Amino acid sequence: MNYKLLLQYDGTDFHGWQIQEGRRTVQGELTQALSLIDGRNVNVHGSGRTDAGVHAEGQVANVEIQREITSTKLRAAINGNIGRDVRVLSCEVVADDFHARYSAIEKTYVYRIVNGPVISPFWWRYAHHDARRLDLESMKQAAELFCGEHDWTAFSAAQSDVEDRVRTVTQVAIHERPDDRSHGSLIEIRVSANGFLRYMVRAIAGTLLAVGRGELDCAAIAAALETGARPTAAVTAPACGLTLLSVRYE
Amino acid sequence: MNYKLLLQYDGTDFHGWQIQEGRRTVQGELTQALSLIDGRNVNVHGSGRTDAGVHAEGQVANVEIQREITSTKLRAAINGNIGRDVRVLSCEVVADDFHARYSAIEKTYVYRIVNGPVISPFWWRYAHHDARRLDLESMKQAAELFCGEHDWTAFSAAQSDVEDRVRTVTQVAIHERPDDRSHGSLIEIRVSANGFLRYMVRAIAGTLLAVGRGELDCAAIAAALETGARPTAAVTAPACGLTLLSVRYE
Repeated sequence: MNYKLLLQYDGTDFHGWQIQEGRRTVQGELTQALSLIDGRNVNVHGSGRTDAGVHAEGQVANVEIQREITSTKLRAAINGNIGRDVRVLSCEVVADDFHARYSAIEKTYVYRIVNGPVISPFWWRYAHHDARRLDLESMKQAAELFCGEHDWTAFSAAQSDVEDRVRTVTQVAIHERPDDRSHGSLIEIRVSANGFLRYMVRAIAGTLLAVGRGELDCAAIAAALETGARPTAAVTAPACGLTLLSVRYE
Repeated sequence: MNYKLLLQYDGTDFHGWQIQEGRRTVQGELTQALSLIDGRNVNVHGSGRTDAGVHAEGQVANVEIQREITSTKLRAAINGNIGRDVRVLSCEVVADDFHARYSAIEKTYVYRIVNGPVISPFWWRYAHHDARRLDLESMKQAAELFCGEHDWTAFSAAQSDVEDRVRTVTQVAIHERPDDRSHGSLIEIRVSANGFLRYMVRAIAGTLLAVGRGELDCAAIAAALETGARPTAAVTAPACGLTLLSVRYE
C-alpha cells in the first residue's frame, strides 16, 4: 500500500531532508524507522528537499509499505521510532500513483523575521532577527515584482545543474504582527510557487530585507530578474527563518 | 545603581534558576555575565526559583551595578555574554530598595497541555502531551476549589522545610484553543497567587489532569486541601509544561 504522510519537523538539529551517510537527516530518520517497521529497505519520497536548519509545518512524503497495518498504527509506529523533533501528524492510504514530489502542484513557504531590539529565546530557532526598523511598505511594493513567471537565476544557488530555472510564483505576501514575547514585531513573508529552486525563498527574503533596510530599490530587483545577476546587498537569508508550510496536490 | 531586569528563558537546557556549582543555571549564567561587566562579583536576585526544565516569559531579577552604564547598553552587554536560550528583554534603573523577590506581590504561571493524538515538534519543549480526550468542564469546576487561601501541604513538595504553607491563589483559569500545528488543542491552566510553594503549580496541573481523565473528583480535592494528603491519582505534572508568565509589583 502507498501511504501519504503529513510531517512536521524542527530542522535545527537536522542536516536537512535528504538522506546522507553518517549525518542525521529527516529522510534518513524516517527511512530507518519505516524499514524497521516493514522488515525491508523502503524508499521515502518527500515533496522536495529542505536544507539544513530549515523547518516544516506541512512537509508531505509517501512510502510503499508491504506489511498490513492500519494508518493509525503506522503513524504510532513511526512516531515511536523517530526523534521528537520530527512527527508524523497524519497518515493515509493513497492511490498507487501518488508521488509526494511529482504529484505536487504548489508549495508554500514562510520566512519569519523578528524585528525589534531583542529576539525572544522562544524564537531564535524559528526566526531570523533584525534589530533595525524595517520599512514594511517598501518591502510590500518590492514583493509584487517577484510574482509571476520569471527566470530565477539571480535568486537561487549559484552552483546548480538545474537547466530550466523558470518558475511561477503565485504569492509573495508580507504580514506584520506584534510579538508580545519579543517586545517587537514578527514579520512573515509567505511565498507560494509551482516549484522552487535551491535557496530561492531565502534569496527572496534576503532581498526584501535589504529593501526594508533601504539598501536596495525596486529598480534593482527588476534588473536582477531581467539579467540573472543578483544585487550585492541581496544576501541569502539564514536557514533558521524558513519553514515549509504546505504542499498542494490536485 | 539598582537595575530591574525582565527575563525570558527556555528552561529545557538549564538546571533551573538557582546557581549551582558545575551546572548550567539561569542565575549562574547571569551572575557570570554581570560580574564580568561590573568587574567584581555581583549578586543577581530573582523573583523566585524555577525548577529544571521550567520556562519563563516574564521572570524578574534585580542586580546592583557599580559601573556607570545606560540601561540599553547594560541589556546589550548581558545579552552578548549569555546563551541565546536566555534573554534580557528590558532593563531599567529602580529604587535602591527594590528587591525582585521581597517586593513581588503576585506571580502568574501557565501550565500548557497539548491534547490530541500527536504533539507537534514545535511544542514538545514547552507543553505536556496528553493524547486522551480531557473533560474541560470537570477541570474548570475543580479549578474553582483551588481559589482562595489554603494550606498547600497536599499540593507541594513532600520534603520541604517551609513552615508556613498557607498561600492565597487568586486565579485558576483554564482555556482551550485549537492548535493548528498539532491537529489537536492546546489547554492552558493559568494560576496566580501571592506566593507559591515548590511544585505547587505542577501539583495543581497534575490534579486537574486527573480530573480531566475522570480519575478524580471534586470531593477528593476538597478533602486533600482539608487534610493535607494528596490523592494518589494527582501526580506532579512534568516540568516542560510550566512557564512563569509574569511577576507583579506595587
